[in-house]
Amino acid sequence: MEMPTPSLTILAKKARVVARLMDVLPADAVIHEVEETRAYECDALTAYKCPPLAAVLPSSTVEVSAVLKICHQEGVPVVPRGSGTSLAGGALPTADSVILGVARMNDVLETAYDDRYIRVQSGRTNLSVTGAVEEDDFFYAPDPSSQLACAIAGNVGMNSGGAHCLKYGVTTNNLLGVTLVQMDGTVVQLGGAHLDAAGLDLLGVVCGSEGQLGVVTEATLRILRKPEGARPVLIGFNDNEVAGACVAEIIKAGVLPVAIEFMDRLCIESTEKFAKAGYPDCNALLIVEVEGSDAEIDEQLGKIAAIARKYDPVELRESKSASESAKIWLGRKSAFGAMGQIGDYMCLDGTIPVSSLPFVLKRIGEMSEDYGLQVGNVFHAGDGNMHPLILFNANKPGDLELCEAFGADILRLCVEVGGCLTGEHGVGIEKRDLMFAQFDAQDMEAQLWVKDVFDPGWLLNPAKVFPLSVTQSRRDQPVAAE
Amino acid sequence: MEMPTPSLTILAKKARVVARLMDVLPADAVIHEVEETRAYECDALTAYKCPPLAAVLPSSTVEVSAVLKICHQEGVPVVPRGSGTSLAGGALPTADSVILGVARMNDVLETAYDDRYIRVQSGRTNLSVTGAVEEDDFFYAPDPSSQLACAIAGNVGMNSGGAHCLKYGVTTNNLLGVTLVQMDGTVVQLGGAHLDAAGLDLLGVVCGSEGQLGVVTEATLRILRKPEGARPVLIGFNDNEVAGACVAEIIKAGVLPVAIEFMDRLCIESTEKFAKAGYPDCNALLIVEVEGSDAEIDEQLGKIAAIARKYDPVELRESKSASESAKIWLGRKSAFGAMGQIGDYMCLDGTIPVSSLPFVLKRIGEMSEDYGLQVGNVFHAGDGNMHPLILFNANKPGDLELCEAFGADILRLCVEVGGCLTGEHGVGIEKRDLMFAQFDAQDMEAQLWVKDVFDPGWLLNPAKVFPLSVTQSRRDQPVAAE
Repeated sequence: MEMPTPSLTILAKKARVVARLMDVLPADAVIHEVEETRAYECDALTAYKCPPLAAVLPSSTVEVSAVLKICHQEGVPVVPRGSGTSLAGGALPTADSVILGVARMNDVLETAYDDRYIRVQSGRTNLSVTGAVEEDDFFYAPDPSSQLACAIAGNVGMNSGGAHCLKYGVTTNNLLGVTLVQMDGTVVQLGGAHLDAAGLDLLGVVCGSEGQLGVVTEATLRILRKPEGARPVLIGFNDNEVAGACVAEIIKAGVLPVAIEFMDRLCIESTEKFAKAGYPDCNALLIVEVEGSDAEIDEQLGKIAAIARKYDPVELRESKSASESAKIWLGRKSAFGAMGQIGDYMCLDGTIPVSSLPFVLKRIGEMSEDYGLQVGNVFHAGDGNMHPLILFNANKPGDLELCEAFGADILRLCVEVGGCLTGEHGVGIEKRDLMFAQFDAQDMEAQLWVKDVFDPGWLLNPAKVFPLSVTQSRRDQPVAAE
Repeated sequence: MEMPTPSLTILAKKARVVARLMDVLPADAVIHEVEETRAYECDALTAYKCPPLAAVLPSSTVEVSAVLKICHQEGVPVVPRGSGTSLAGGALPTADSVILGVARMNDVLETAYDDRYIRVQSGRTNLSVTGAVEEDDFFYAPDPSSQLACAIAGNVGMNSGGAHCLKYGVTTNNLLGVTLVQMDGTVVQLGGAHLDAAGLDLLGVVCGSEGQLGVVTEATLRILRKPEGARPVLIGFNDNEVAGACVAEIIKAGVLPVAIEFMDRLCIESTEKFAKAGYPDCNALLIVEVEGSDAEIDEQLGKIAAIARKYDPVELRESKSASESAKIWLGRKSAFGAMGQIGDYMCLDGTIPVSSLPFVLKRIGEMSEDYGLQVGNVFHAGDGNMHPLILFNANKPGDLELCEAFGADILRLCVEVGGCLTGEHGVGIEKRDLMFAQFDAQDMEAQLWVKDVFDPGWLLNPAKVFPLSVTQSRRDQPVAAE
């Protein structure tokens, strides 16, 4: 990729900003050589790339505050970055921005088993939060697919979920408090290790705010006691709609599995070829997992099997051993990789009310024929979080655009049936221009009020979340005076 | 009570406002005769009283919007009111304000069992939400003691909890969306019947905002399938600290009862005299309830009993029948009434980390001696939500003030150990001047940013939540132009 030559004014500004950043950070924490900034030119939505002005890697809340204060004074946009695993372009830089990466901030600050919480720096990876407490038989519940790499900062930013969130909730249900550094460098504490909050509870609006309101440097997280055991069951159907109806009845019956995962034929077949998980030959596959003691597991699986049998499944197979369970999950966790073997794909993320599952799957099938692009469906069915994977050919001119148009239609469909544009990936740059499909002008305005007061200069994570037209009109406002 | 004679200017303004309100509401929905407004002069914190300028009882979101638009234009403060059961003065009028009561807005708008939600008008009482779905074996989980009377509007305003919130969470964990009317009459939709939200999620900050940001007219609530059964166990100890340690170990062990209630000797004795629940003679009593099938209940109670036995209980009695269970709960639910038989009391509401229970109980005992006022402790121990009841004599000059000072000290203690000023009653007028014990100036300022943009004229629920000094300084700002 050839980079355009920056103007002298921009170079002078860059030199000044970098010099000021080096005053407050160790030399190796300020990345400014053009070749080195390329490491930060994109996140996991690799179709979009742009190297930042510079990247900084602070080690503490104090350093984050110092960085933001400088950027605020200089009017330089800041893009907060966890581990860069966003599938929605949530950490994509602009050419004039400083990437603020929290990767070096990964300490455990406090562990309190009696009160069931852990306090960590926000750069700590999701899986290593559980890693810090699992010897004592505790775990942190939200489990995004990227949990080995993704940072708590990104989890908070996107309100991440995961396969096991049906029972335990998503990030917002497991987040007790944060330390937030505002754009002008002010440090505030929101929430804490206690039930409820006095006054206005700002924790909920910060969770899922995609770096629009400040930089989260520390998080207090709920930890839970590990269950005695867990066991999945595979249920195969010859019809998507029947599988959807079975999911809705399990939910309605009040059984609460930890996970209900759904895969359609395209995903089942590609996964089976790739991971050899022993999945049955069928059109729709459910993986339902329950937790507890052996007696509790037997009882819950008994209820689930009784419901499933009413829907005439082609397969109903309970795991008989730990290795069988591992194989079943290996298949599910390989599904994205397996689809990648077939071709390029775009992974969508939207939510729908569980009862509209059959209708939405049928409509996606029809749209797939209209667009001439194949779709694999693999998703968290229990809470209606869909991840349609649209296959396309990146080397075929126009195919990416066609795929994006198809994706937008699917997300509009989610909103039409009473769902939402995003489940756990966030809006980022991917879905910013669909926001008016979800919100009318007044709903949007209320969100903008909050953005305006937390970041009056619109310097935080620019060009994300809100439609570009909105961002452009707001950025005309002057930056707040120091 | 003798009311001061209002000035002519105020009377003229009242006449104009009332006339305008009558233009948009039926005649019987505008209460303005001085004698009639007295019905709205206080809520359940009856120590404070002030009749409002007028009270209105709209029947729809459209009417609420029309009322707010008029009050906004006239610069008249508005006090939203659910059922008036606030123990913190959350619905106390000021003399220049209009009470906006939602009591006539109590319809069920939509019931969706497959998607497990119900949408209601916000004036519907908590218990009648469950009433609308219980024939179909569903229920709404949060269960404040006042659930027969209190409205969902108040539950959302205060983020109410209840005895069974240990397992199911408080209001914010069971609220999916609201219709909010802003002070200028604008109607916005926040959240909805789906997982997650795109953009900035304002639902969390509205929940618990005590009418500071707008008037909630409709709410979408999570409903759950009724459990097969439930069974409580009584565990008596001779020492508060030992009981506290037992609670902490149950929580840490990962058993998740629906409720862990705690009563100390003063409460046990007064309740036993009053309700004859068959409580044992001991210093600290736990009521632990678990839910599920018989097998699940047996297994969970087995684990709980094994933990309890390690702490040498003086009593460990599992309920053997539905009538025994009802008697056990009747006692707990009569505790406040029983304490009222001994004398006047002030009911506090604060939260603490569960592990500090023994320390906090010990300190409250010491403070009780210092102040010379008795305290009964009855609370939701599982999630650290305390309700100390301070006994005083309302007819003894100075006793109320002494009691308030003692209460403030207890709440400061809650904050000191890492807890919070409020669990479920809200800040209201009761705790507004303690807010700086919880928040420093910068934490407070972030809350004020949000209040300022949603209600720039500071007309919504005046003189609550924020310290009076803060409110006074903010209200000097002009009301936003129409």
